[in-house]
Amino acid sequence: MFGARCLLRALRSCSSAPCPRHRPAARVSVRGALGVQNANGERVTVQGWIRSVRSQKEVLFLHVNDGSSLESLQVVADSSFDSRELAFGSSVEVQGQLVKSPSKKQNVELKAEKIEVVGNCDAKAFPFKYKERHPLEYLRQYPHLRCRTNILGSILRVRSEATAAIHSFFKDSGFVHIHTPVITSNDCEGAGELFQVEPSSKIKVPEENFFNIPVFLTVSGQLHLEVMSGAFTQVFTFGPTFRAENSQSRRHLAEFYMVEAEISFLESLQDLMQVMESLFKTTAMTVLSNCPKDVELCHKFIAPGQKDRLEHMLKNNFLIISYTEAVEILKQASQNFTFTPEWGADLHTEHEKYLVKHCGDIPVFVINYPRALKPFYMRDNEDGPQHTVAAVDLLVPGVGELFGGSLREERCHFLEQRLARLGLTEAYQWVL
Amino acid sequence: MFGARCLLRALRSCSSAPCPRHRPAARVSVRGALGVQNANGERVTVQGWIRSVRSQKEVLFLHVNDGSSLESLQVVADSSFDSRELAFGSSVEVQGQLVKSPSKKQNVELKAEKIEVVGNCDAKAFPFKYKERHPLEYLRQYPHLRCRTNILGSILRVRSEATAAIHSFFKDSGFVHIHTPVITSNDCEGAGELFQVEPSSKIKVPEENFFNIPVFLTVSGQLHLEVMSGAFTQVFTFGPTFRAENSQSRRHLAEFYMVEAEISFLESLQDLMQVMESLFKTTAMTVLSNCPKDVELCHKFIAPGQKDRLEHMLKNNFLIISYTEAVEILKQASQNFTFTPEWGADLHTEHEKYLVKHCGDIPVFVINYPRALKPFYMRDNEDGPQHTVAAVDLLVPGVGELFGGSLREERCHFLEQRLARLGLTEAYQWVL
Repeated sequence: MFGARCLLRALRSCSSAPCPRHRPAARVSVRGALGVQNANGERVTVQGWIRSVRSQKEVLFLHVNDGSSLESLQVVADSSFDSRELAFGSSVEVQGQLVKSPSKKQNVELKAEKIEVVGNCDAKAFPFKYKERHPLEYLRQYPHLRCRTNILGSILRVRSEATAAIHSFFKDSGFVHIHTPVITSNDCEGAGELFQVEPSSKIKVPEENFFNIPVFLTVSGQLHLEVMSGAFTQVFTFGPTFRAENSQSRRHLAEFYMVEAEISFLESLQDLMQVMESLFKTTAMTVLSNCPKDVELCHKFIAPGQKDRLEHMLKNNFLIISYTEAVEILKQASQNFTFTPEWGADLHTEHEKYLVKHCGDIPVFVINYPRALKPFYMRDNEDGPQHTVAAVDLLVPGVGELFGGSLREERCHFLEQRLARLGLTEAYQWVL
Repeated sequence: MFGARCLLRALRSCSSAPCPRHRPAARVSVRGALGVQNANGERVTVQGWIRSVRSQKEVLFLHVNDGSSLESLQVVADSSFDSRELAFGSSVEVQGQLVKSPSKKQNVELKAEKIEVVGNCDAKAFPFKYKERHPLEYLRQYPHLRCRTNILGSILRVRSEATAAIHSFFKDSGFVHIHTPVITSNDCEGAGELFQVEPSSKIKVPEENFFNIPVFLTVSGQLHLEVMSGAFTQVFTFGPTFRAENSQSRRHLAEFYMVEAEISFLESLQDLMQVMESLFKTTAMTVLSNCPKDVELCHKFIAPGQKDRLEHMLKNNFLIISYTEAVEILKQASQNFTFTPEWGADLHTEHEKYLVKHCGDIPVFVINYPRALKPFYMRDNEDGPQHTVAAVDLLVPGVGELFGGSLREERCHFLEQRLARLGLTEAYQWVL
């Protein structure tokens, strides 16, 4: 479904008749205009929202932004254009010539020939003030306007770029994309509290059950992907997943997007880690090269210094240590932890942070976790005296655990034994 | 989250030591192997599932498929490799040399030097028979195996290609991708029956409400996108949407994926239709050029002749007629319709089919629908005597309505009047 909030009608009258004097002005985005090399008076039309107004005796300076980039385009107009309607927040259409800017702040500016106000903005009613940096908590109150701020604009552009990069990476690597179901009757490995789904009219007809069985929002597409990898070898999904955990932390959302992949015929964790490292690096590099200014802004105000750390990560090969080595490193640490590191216990956030720092702020794969910590389907390493499985987690500076994965147990008798010990044989009969 | 069902362990022992006689065999997909021009004895490893076995006196022919393409790779082996384990459905790893095939059926074949059975298949227990074409209803019983059939493999590869093409199209056209929420408290324009969402543990604590208000699965991201288009100008989403309509037809699914886009500053339906036509053509051309064999199979067994029709559509410009013209065409038709065509009434499937045929099996945009048929936010054309809005539907041969869209009403007093008439002023106060 498509739509367009058509904000400008006045233009229509002139658009049907050809303009005799000039070639028609090409409509370009702000990003497109700013990217013009050696601007030489090209006639263009730019549409967007006014970010700032500076009125001088004979000249009017506007900054216009259309969300295509963090930077705004400087519009230079004759003071005769000055009007009360050209205010912070108003939407405008500007026709004019792209020229080299005399200022060092930008390469290009737009010499306005015509400015139309598409939509007024009542500056008094508008909740954001010009040049003011509003805290994120304040912006939360205006979900329909907050994406017009620099910070949320940048975050959403970065997210959009990363999403596209992830799709491209898997496509270029020969993976088949699968839309795994959102409504499902299985709860995967009991990854958390579930949301149940029922038709809202069910209240009226309580004896009727829409799907015949109770259904939930998916917590993971893993089981569906495993089935699909038995047909396509390499598959991935990138869809919404849900957890009904009622905790207020930035690590627990009710709804979030997750990338999941399954590969058949994989022989070692090494191959798996290579896919993970490539995915991380390709995505990060795409974002860095396609929206460097957005990254800079985010890292200036949200995670100071993170951009340098990211570039440091991209230059180096990721490290690999075993869970057992990780516990040894933690035991020898001079730092005091809230949770004492011990073989067989989960790694806590404080441990993950220490490990990453210990490794020189380079992402580190931790492999071969204790069997007791991991779900039944991970491949038994048959080692001793401490029993481990071929699982891997990727710890990343500033994030903690980013990816997790494992070789899957394919040997039927191992699965049978393990399920029997866990008392799950009946529930997972179909796996066998 | 990543995983790999590791099916082959035997190989590991030899992978760590370098092989003295040969260069290591590169692992290639079946698609990759089939695409080699002038095969000249390259040493490769191919993994996949056996699709057919033909044993002759001195030679054994296998067809191996890994899901990367519809076609299988022919493996030619010495009869000494013959074993009961090399059966239909088994998974194998084959090392050998890629050579030119003497047969005209394929360019390339794999001369096997080593064949490992990764996973046995009990042909008696396997529900699909070799060379048999099973009806789709039968395949439905085996959701975990059916994607190994030609027909479902093709459909899912086509879907994956189309998904990637849609993402690329919007990215290349400067749209920002937005993940609109799946769990939401608004029901858009009342597009249908809703699914309600509650934590499954709620049954135990009935007085507690997870989100404080009733929440539903989204029926459309349109309202969220409209807000976002006010910041980024051009935005799109491609996510799951839900309808709780309890009807068993191929047009009504409880869960389906929908592409939605919003564009600010759009001046005419013409511009909107251009985006729709480009999206359709780009996606169709990508699918046709990236998986022609899959398309052929689908169109041979699911929609006979559809491929030619598709190519016919791609060669021609789409047509545009007004709703009023469409009704005139239907009234003058020699065909008898179940629903008599009349100005002011919805176009039914039979009408859509007739219109598309009448237009020479080329997709046709129907524009300017009666105001009474469309939701309040579509732009009033202020025409007479028959009152219409600037809405557009794209009718496509073999499909019916594929896209719908409209210019959005931006004039506040029009919205107020319309909402008042519909008695919706209070519910939609926030729009104004």
